[in-house]
Amino acid sequence: MRPFSALPCAGAVIVIAIVGVASVVRGDGGQKPASPIYGVTIPDGYRKWELVAPALEHEPLNESRAVVGNQEAIDAYRAGSLPFLDGAVLVKLAWKHVQALEFGSALVPGAATTVQVMVKDSKKYAASGGWGFGRFVGGKPVDEAQHETCFACRESRVKARDYVFTRLAP
Amino acid sequence: MRPFSALPCAGAVIVIAIVGVASVVRGDGGQKPASPIYGVTIPDGYRKWELVAPALEHEPLNESRAVVGNQEAIDAYRAGSLPFLDGAVLVKLAWKHVQALEFGSALVPGAATTVQVMVKDSKKYAASGGWGFGRFVGGKPVDEAQHETCFACRESRVKARDYVFTRLAP
Repeated sequence: MRPFSALPCAGAVIVIAIVGVASVVRGDGGQKPASPIYGVTIPDGYRKWELVAPALEHEPLNESRAVVGNQEAIDAYRAGSLPFLDGAVLVKLAWKHVQALEFGSALVPGAATTVQVMVKDSKKYAASGGWGFGRFVGGKPVDEAQHETCFACRESRVKARDYVFTRLAP
Repeated sequence: MRPFSALPCAGAVIVIAIVGVASVVRGDGGQKPASPIYGVTIPDGYRKWELVAPALEHEPLNESRAVVGNQEAIDAYRAGSLPFLDGAVLVKLAWKHVQALEFGSALVPGAATTVQVMVKDSKKYAASGGWGFGRFVGGKPVDEAQHETCFACRESRVKARDYVFTRLAP
């Protein structure tokens, strides 16, 4: 039987192990689900980020959307300076839109659909305009084929605006 | 002609005057335009507040909207606890919606229209469900008649939800 004096040490080992796992889970990548091609993950705390703009998608999506940005992204928008600097991250939240129960002329968010992330890293993502993309449903990234459309679509439509559709709402 | 030595003193008076005016303008009320009936002003820094939810208004308004809340308001939403506590503030931003230039199926914000503010103070606004209202166009409050509709509308439709239409988007 192990001596009693060993128990505090075992406790310390357990604590270190827990802290170790937590730091990996919270880290960039680690055990967070990452997108194919780009390895982009859903950033912590994005739900508190500043609003860039809301949007509404008609058929076939029928979605309410809102794009939020981290401080680096918002700073670039406010300064009107493109391209976005490395570190800028944009997240688009999306929901099926539904008729408001108490206000018939309004469409409001229903069930969440996708979370879409754009991360600026001009070296890591040099082949895709400096942006890495992640498209998540229920917290899980969608397949590689869907991710292949992200940059191609932006390159054909909004290359001159650093591949970003959403403008800062006034 | 005034002696040269008086100039630094005059400069100091001007600086003090500017600082004094600035502190009044930034203060709660003071020289900020306040709504009739309620005396509600546009809160500083609200554009950085957390998103509660986007919305879209059909005819006749044709607006994109987004409600944001201060920390007290967001805390109440996340806890699912009504009524909102004193200090909670909600701000609704609104824009005429326009077709996105580069993405035909999307409606996005155009020109800003109104900023609408709800401030919870159960004593000060006891006669209107604990809420004070402010509706601003171009930073200026609209008239008293428009402000009289705020509480009546909410009382008839969303009294059970502490007079707040907007739900936290999931």
